[in-house]
Amino acid sequence: MPPDSTRRSERSRRAIYDAALALVTEVGYPKTTIEGIAARAGVGKQTIYRWWSSKADVLLEAFIDLSAQAAEAADRPEVIGEQAAYEIPDTGDLEADLKLVLRATVDELLDPAFEAPSRALAAEGVVNEEVGREFVGKLLEPQLQLYVKRLRAAQEQGAVRADLDPRIALELFVSPLAQRWLQYTGPITYEYTDKLVEYALYGLAPR
Amino acid sequence: MPPDSTRRSERSRRAIYDAALALVTEVGYPKTTIEGIAARAGVGKQTIYRWWSSKADVLLEAFIDLSAQAAEAADRPEVIGEQAAYEIPDTGDLEADLKLVLRATVDELLDPAFEAPSRALAAEGVVNEEVGREFVGKLLEPQLQLYVKRLRAAQEQGAVRADLDPRIALELFVSPLAQRWLQYTGPITYEYTDKLVEYALYGLAPR
Repeated sequence: MPPDSTRRSERSRRAIYDAALALVTEVGYPKTTIEGIAARAGVGKQTIYRWWSSKADVLLEAFIDLSAQAAEAADRPEVIGEQAAYEIPDTGDLEADLKLVLRATVDELLDPAFEAPSRALAAEGVVNEEVGREFVGKLLEPQLQLYVKRLRAAQEQGAVRADLDPRIALELFVSPLAQRWLQYTGPITYEYTDKLVEYALYGLAPR
Repeated sequence: MPPDSTRRSERSRRAIYDAALALVTEVGYPKTTIEGIAARAGVGKQTIYRWWSSKADVLLEAFIDLSAQAAEAADRPEVIGEQAAYEIPDTGDLEADLKLVLRATVDELLDPAFEAPSRALAAEGVVNEEVGREFVGKLLEPQLQLYVKRLRAAQEQGAVRADLDPRIALELFVSPLAQRWLQYTGPITYEYTDKLVEYALYGLAPR
């Protein structure tokens, strides 16, 4: 059992995360301030500055925490480390493994707890290159690197052409889902992501 | 030669488009108003309301006009109609045709005249489903339908598997480029889009 001060800190930290995510959802990134987060969390501004140096930092960690919670709720295996990242399973069946992970991504994208704050942050990233690069670099890219790792293993197993760049190859099934979510260009379903995996693996040209 | 009043209208219309695009770039979609556009264009508010019913309408037409101008500048064949849309060439070589069109899209995405207002609008669409659906439905989807048409022709020619849904298939090469542009997830180059086409057509699995 942790000492009282640790539990108090943990409660404050969680209250600050919740406040930051709620605020960015309601007023957007530009109008979210450390002062606003502190007031909503019921803590002093100095409490926030003791742990974080900017609102971008607070939000980044709030998102990492949110992803970790989602992973716990879904009982998915979690990689311990700085990133909210999960191993992609390697059962030896690349098609099945990719379909499974993309279905989990569909669930996450449609989870209201995740969707609203993620949209607020993604929107800011579209017009604010610094925010875009910071959050993509720290949140999205580590997840994409898990696909790189899985595709490299598949290349060694002979399931993916050895001459392909896996960092580009993963975009064939990851980016369509991302664009449908970002731009409302089409429905997001398991049937859809299953097709993306099939099309990407076997190509559009006849075999 | 058009009568004076037509030329005056045309000048006003162009001034209003320019003002709308400049304003949305500078202050974002939520703070862009008909009043602000009118003031910047040097016309009365009523002049705008005579032609358009909302700021969304003005911006939509301004974007269609911007795309048409870009097409003229690039000397690309334009489809006459409501949409800023272009035929995708059909030389019988699907790979070459898709590479050509995606390279032109790279040029457009990196054109500063296009990029700033497009980002402002795309960002609003991420957090505002109504705006997102309106603009995607009227601007982006008609362009995607040109790929559907080209892929259907390829299916008839035997260059694409007949059982594929072309509306999903096109996303394998279109969406990765869109995500890199929207989220700064990687560099945007001709070499990159060429690879997307190759990977999508021939698949990641060995043939």
